[in-house]
Amino acid sequence: MKKLFKTLAVFFITLTTIFATETLNLMPVPKSLELNNSKCYLHREFKIEIKSHHGDDLYTYATRILRRLDERTGLCFHQDILVPNEPVENAFLTIETQRQGQVKLYENESYELVISESEIKLNAVTDIGAMRGLETLLQLLGADENGYFFPTLKINDEPRFPWRGLMIDVARHFHDVHVIKRNIDGMAALKMNVLHLHLCDDQGFRIESKVFPKLHLISGEEQYFSQEQIKDIVRYAKARGIRVIPEFDVPGHGTSFIVAYPELSSSNKPVTLERTWGVHDPTLNPTEDITYKFLDQLFEEMGTLFPDEYFHIGGDENNGKEWSANEKIKKFMKDNHIPDNHALQTYFNKQILKILTHHQKKMIGWDEILQPELPRESVVHSWRGPNFLVQAVRNGYQTILSNGYYIDLIQPASYHYMIDPVPQDSNLTEEEIKFVLGGEATMWSEFVDDDVIDSRIWPRTAAIAERFWSPAEIQDIDDMYRRLEVTCFRLEEHGLNHIRYQEMFFRRLTNNQDTRPLKTLVDVIEMLKIYNRHRTFFKNEKYQSHTPLTRVVDATLPDPKIPREFSKLIDQYISSDFSPEYEQKIRNQLNLWKKNDPDLRAIAKKSPMLNEILPMSEKLTTMSEIGIKTLEYIKSQKKPSIFWKRNALKSLENCKEQVAGTELMVVAPIEKLVMKITD
Amino acid sequence: MKKLFKTLAVFFITLTTIFATETLNLMPVPKSLELNNSKCYLHREFKIEIKSHHGDDLYTYATRILRRLDERTGLCFHQDILVPNEPVENAFLTIETQRQGQVKLYENESYELVISESEIKLNAVTDIGAMRGLETLLQLLGADENGYFFPTLKINDEPRFPWRGLMIDVARHFHDVHVIKRNIDGMAALKMNVLHLHLCDDQGFRIESKVFPKLHLISGEEQYFSQEQIKDIVRYAKARGIRVIPEFDVPGHGTSFIVAYPELSSSNKPVTLERTWGVHDPTLNPTEDITYKFLDQLFEEMGTLFPDEYFHIGGDENNGKEWSANEKIKKFMKDNHIPDNHALQTYFNKQILKILTHHQKKMIGWDEILQPELPRESVVHSWRGPNFLVQAVRNGYQTILSNGYYIDLIQPASYHYMIDPVPQDSNLTEEEIKFVLGGEATMWSEFVDDDVIDSRIWPRTAAIAERFWSPAEIQDIDDMYRRLEVTCFRLEEHGLNHIRYQEMFFRRLTNNQDTRPLKTLVDVIEMLKIYNRHRTFFKNEKYQSHTPLTRVVDATLPDPKIPREFSKLIDQYISSDFSPEYEQKIRNQLNLWKKNDPDLRAIAKKSPMLNEILPMSEKLTTMSEIGIKTLEYIKSQKKPSIFWKRNALKSLENCKEQVAGTELMVVAPIEKLVMKITD
Repeated sequence: MKKLFKTLAVFFITLTTIFATETLNLMPVPKSLELNNSKCYLHREFKIEIKSHHGDDLYTYATRILRRLDERTGLCFHQDILVPNEPVENAFLTIETQRQGQVKLYENESYELVISESEIKLNAVTDIGAMRGLETLLQLLGADENGYFFPTLKINDEPRFPWRGLMIDVARHFHDVHVIKRNIDGMAALKMNVLHLHLCDDQGFRIESKVFPKLHLISGEEQYFSQEQIKDIVRYAKARGIRVIPEFDVPGHGTSFIVAYPELSSSNKPVTLERTWGVHDPTLNPTEDITYKFLDQLFEEMGTLFPDEYFHIGGDENNGKEWSANEKIKKFMKDNHIPDNHALQTYFNKQILKILTHHQKKMIGWDEILQPELPRESVVHSWRGPNFLVQAVRNGYQTILSNGYYIDLIQPASYHYMIDPVPQDSNLTEEEIKFVLGGEATMWSEFVDDDVIDSRIWPRTAAIAERFWSPAEIQDIDDMYRRLEVTCFRLEEHGLNHIRYQEMFFRRLTNNQDTRPLKTLVDVIEMLKIYNRHRTFFKNEKYQSHTPLTRVVDATLPDPKIPREFSKLIDQYISSDFSPEYEQKIRNQLNLWKKNDPDLRAIAKKSPMLNEILPMSEKLTTMSEIGIKTLEYIKSQKKPSIFWKRNALKSLENCKEQVAGTELMVVAPIEKLVMKITD
Repeated sequence: MKKLFKTLAVFFITLTTIFATETLNLMPVPKSLELNNSKCYLHREFKIEIKSHHGDDLYTYATRILRRLDERTGLCFHQDILVPNEPVENAFLTIETQRQGQVKLYENESYELVISESEIKLNAVTDIGAMRGLETLLQLLGADENGYFFPTLKINDEPRFPWRGLMIDVARHFHDVHVIKRNIDGMAALKMNVLHLHLCDDQGFRIESKVFPKLHLISGEEQYFSQEQIKDIVRYAKARGIRVIPEFDVPGHGTSFIVAYPELSSSNKPVTLERTWGVHDPTLNPTEDITYKFLDQLFEEMGTLFPDEYFHIGGDENNGKEWSANEKIKKFMKDNHIPDNHALQTYFNKQILKILTHHQKKMIGWDEILQPELPRESVVHSWRGPNFLVQAVRNGYQTILSNGYYIDLIQPASYHYMIDPVPQDSNLTEEEIKFVLGGEATMWSEFVDDDVIDSRIWPRTAAIAERFWSPAEIQDIDDMYRRLEVTCFRLEEHGLNHIRYQEMFFRRLTNNQDTRPLKTLVDVIEMLKIYNRHRTFFKNEKYQSHTPLTRVVDATLPDPKIPREFSKLIDQYISSDFSPEYEQKIRNQLNLWKKNDPDLRAIAKKSPMLNEILPMSEKLTTMSEIGIKTLEYIKSQKKPSIFWKRNALKSLENCKEQVAGTELMVVAPIEKLVMKITD
């Protein structure tokens, strides 16, 4: 207990320092940091030396760090490539490690970074820890009139949770190798260490199987990773200290299996690959040996491609319809005393577990796998709610949390940030908390293709990554957003598209006309959150795999900055007792929004793709006019007519309605303002 | 002769129509076009049917066309994937071909496209011709208040030259598969049909050899295409009607061969992979059997990866130093009556030719291979000048031209556009002209990495593509630039980075501050042309492979628009006898430039990477001040002091000097203006 207090004490000093200086942009925040008051300037002769040779990966990593630093500073370093057993004279940064790390659960990722004016020392137990430290170093880069520098300091750091993941669904929309790679680089920059690939679903099977080639060939679209590509991805991730976990979702979400090999089906219905989203019926048959023989061979093949000891079998959203409709399955259940479909799935999982155990793999599955008799070495992946996580922990299972980290649902970074992998008020004991391994952000891909995906993952996932790495007490949302903005900018250097894709979309949406009026609108709207977008397509039609993701809704950014700032401005105005300074700022903003509509309409005349968003543009004008009028009432302290306020609030309610899958994010602050008018 | 006149007549009517309407943005301009005066509107039920099944590639091509059209219009077409032997009801666009095309020299690429208000018909001899026609269709997309439409018209089109290539050097800087692929898509959009990959050079060997693995492994950087990746690229190109020609540069530029297999060397000197640019000494030994055995095995292996009948052996820039310094080689020359190094290279080429012939390949090489006894079926690739092309043609060789199409030299599109593969004043006969197969734009990669390369290739290569495809008489530079701007915009849909990379570079260069002052400067500067940038690095130092390509010079665009327009504005001002209307425009522009410097300096204080460009910013201010003063003299018709004009011109001369590898592109118009002041 004494120790804990000590840790917290160091930590709070640290935090204060960070806030005070506002110069540090570290994300995730390290465990402890002592800041000195001087600067360590960078120069062309900056060189890195690795003092202890424990594997080649650190050499290529350090070489990349050198290049990234050079690309940011343009100093044109003399040092070229770091090569094992080639001594480096007069190195400025020296790295020492004790052993080569293994890319597996619980590996040591701690490091110590000491920056003085004349040298930088990075020590770590493993090369993976050193990689984490190198990313910290790069985040410390500052600049002033005298040049580029690092602040002098000492950092001791290690992760709070050993499992810090990002899941990418490559089944609903496939994503190219280079897209996966740039996201791996983004993960490494944020000290994440697990890439979970959702490799198959009702819409397709996205990895080459040499044993069952129909699986990946059946779609005819060549949208899958070849085995060579998967090996490349696994190698690429490993070189950055990142594990790759494959997921083969069974027995539900099984359409792609059944289209390729109908003998695996629980029904006789002919099926085709799904081109829409949702929960579908096709389910593997858990009562036939052929299913297990098939999965045995498949998992053996796939297990060799993914060296990680964990293997994700999905197991979610089996609606059980096909099982209930199949007389043979019903008879099997009766004969084997299996009371219901849940128990049947447990039976299935037990067979799968045998297969995985035989191939030296540990099973991980979505929280539906938590059934009596689930073996202890399985990991429960909680997606339905923190209560499922707590339940699994109480039953002695290791767990990871994804509920609350569904980045496809377009919730703000602050929302994800405040969710802890250890559920609040869960009263888990210290011992139980150890069963919480960490969590994963999940990028389900109904609405993301290669152009859009980065903007849905980044920067919000950086806030989640901080939650997984940093002390639980780090919870200042304003400071998180301050650092997130810098992090967002720096993530571009990995080739991530999350910022630049937007201007390209604007150019296409405006048919290469002036993009500013569109930007003004898009800055204050967002894609509908949770699952609401699915319900906004053309009447009675569902989104399809081939529906274009190039509309205005796709150009909106999750968690946009301007609404956040506008909301704060309104609060400041109110809490300052209607200070004219804030009033002027609000008025300027509202005037800008108000007059945007005609400009956008003029552009839409030559770009009909914008027509669907014009009603939203009109709402922005309406809302701005109400806001301006409200400012006048407040300023003049005049009462509005008896109906004005009621009508204004009604209009604002209307302004909140969705248009073309988007919603206006600045209405609530105006409502708040209207409520301030004295009746 | 009658026929020619008829063709020209149709053609000129066409051209006039294009100019008159200014609605068509076709690039390259088709051979003949008859425009009607109505519109064919697009709607959700737009469907494509392929009436004749000649290979699957056209189905996937047409599916992509459907998706691109949908992404541009957001119409959310109902049609999903085009599949052979699945009838399409009520198709709006029907495609008919006579046979499957072969991706080889001289294949038929002609097509006929007829658009009426109620249907679109595309007819072609081969599926490749249909692909060309589909790209034309997409370029015809227009928009008005009623929606998206195609103009009704009839186009008959075919290429002027059968060889329309782009060479990408992947040796000096390696380029990832996805970068190559997006450029292949760009090529297809411009109807180009040859991708030439310069696969090895002194800096590296960029393709996996299973027979001689040291070739690609020796660098240790994993910067090479695996054989699977090459097959993927070749397949990707083939599906777009594009040939892929590999180049293995021998016997010069041979460092990568010799580092891996020193027994191939012409000297005993130990060598390492080059990390600088230029012409280097290491050269294969043409007098040893081992060299030919080696190349025989290598070319056999590589020949199977590249199905094209042509195989490029480089053959350029052998400086002969190692041959002259090697006593054994000198003895061999004497014994075999080989008078000089040129003759020795001819001897070498003859052996290579035997090898290639044995493997059913035709030889192509840079124009140094043109020596007596070069076999007739070889193709001479002219890079040193049109005279070499004429000489080759006169000697009965087929040729392609790259001299004049070196896009790495940062010359304007207009320059490349006016160079014809058939050299002007060459007096080649009609028969001889047939030996000119076409040409290739060449993207040498000393100064381009994956981020920068697209901006160096596009959009200028589109103007070259038009030169290779369209009738020779199409030469209107203003109209080319008008269409090039639209083409540039549309090329973004292939994932090409040529526009959006710039804002990302600006963000990095400004350290995420306001990018506008930097943009104002970068809009009027260019990277030094020809080979001048090489000489501008730090004193006495050469550019290295690892030198960062993220400086201001790398964010400049070739052939920028604003200087071109400013120059035109000055001309209009002068030719209008100093009209106040133009004067005001010039003054506004100059004032904007003049006051940019302090803004940029403020940003540089927090981003030292900008310091190197500040002297250029100062030059822009100086130049603008002189310009403003000149306007005043002209307006007031006052004479300046006796020294003013002389000093002004001297200052302007100084403004032309390079800064940090860039030059100011708006000085000459100001000089012109100063000269207009009456003395």
